[in-house]
Amino acid sequence: MRHTEHTVTIDAPAEIVWDVLVDVEGYARIFPPTQEVTILEETGEYQIARLVVDVNGQIQSWVSRRDIDVERKVIAYRQLETAPLMGHMGGEWRALPLGDDRTQLVLTHDFCPRTPVDGKVAGKFTYEEADELLRAAVERNSVADLAAVKAAAERQAVGAGRVS
Amino acid sequence: MRHTEHTVTIDAPAEIVWDVLVDVEGYARIFPPTQEVTILEETGEYQIARLVVDVNGQIQSWVSRRDIDVERKVIAYRQLETAPLMGHMGGEWRALPLGDDRTQLVLTHDFCPRTPVDGKVAGKFTYEEADELLRAAVERNSVADLAAVKAAAERQAVGAGRVS
Repeated sequence: MRHTEHTVTIDAPAEIVWDVLVDVEGYARIFPPTQEVTILEETGEYQIARLVVDVNGQIQSWVSRRDIDVERKVIAYRQLETAPLMGHMGGEWRALPLGDDRTQLVLTHDFCPRTPVDGKVAGKFTYEEADELLRAAVERNSVADLAAVKAAAERQAVGAGRVS
Repeated sequence: MRHTEHTVTIDAPAEIVWDVLVDVEGYARIFPPTQEVTILEETGEYQIARLVVDVNGQIQSWVSRRDIDVERKVIAYRQLETAPLMGHMGGEWRALPLGDDRTQLVLTHDFCPRTPVDGKVAGKFTYEEADELLRAAVERNSVADLAAVKAAAERQAVGAGRVS
């Protein structure tokens, strides 16, 4: 299992960043590759949602469970029904206050490819190839996803007049 | 100016991580490339220190000022006398509590190469080459430095019996 952590500083209060993170249906608006998000189940403590995402020009779909800790501003996600190459995918979004006006947003991933069948993952790749494809995709998407949340939260903070 | 942020989760309370960060003389013990640290000036609010560091087999030296915010557990550092290729180097160490037993440690860098003289930085490299060398060094050192602080803090936390 690989573990990665990525982070960005956001010029917006943690409450605004949190609102962006919790609004999973809004992901289709702020993350360009995300085509559609359907909430299958939702309480104050968790969400289960189907995501339809353009992964390198290929439409893929998976189901994620997101456990929501409002107090700590942490969302622990994991794919219940994984994307094609994925054996496991989970991690956390953490919105840590940096004073009143800024937030340290952290995104962690724990992942590994599917177990190969007849030496191949998804009928196409060696384990090493699948691992490298996932590693590169996680790297790319982490940077893009953090930037997208940062942009959305900073727009809202300016709109709310909370950051000059 | 380039801006980067790196992070790691540490299984130790923020107080222990903070103690490791503030003990700049201890850096020679925990960061293998750091040969020697001499404190030139120190108050409760800042430190000025000369660091002697092995950078890819070459001994380099610079002077850093570190402004210490005990309340927020943030150290803002900047090189007053820069390393050979460096035009500016500054950033922050941030120890953000993740509950009582864990810490999100963040290390940011803002940097750029020196202005070329007769088209060369330090008499040797084009601006683009110096920029790429610095970028690669910051990437490598960030990962290594975070891992070193993590290891030192987790050792101390186990020693202090605060994490089982």
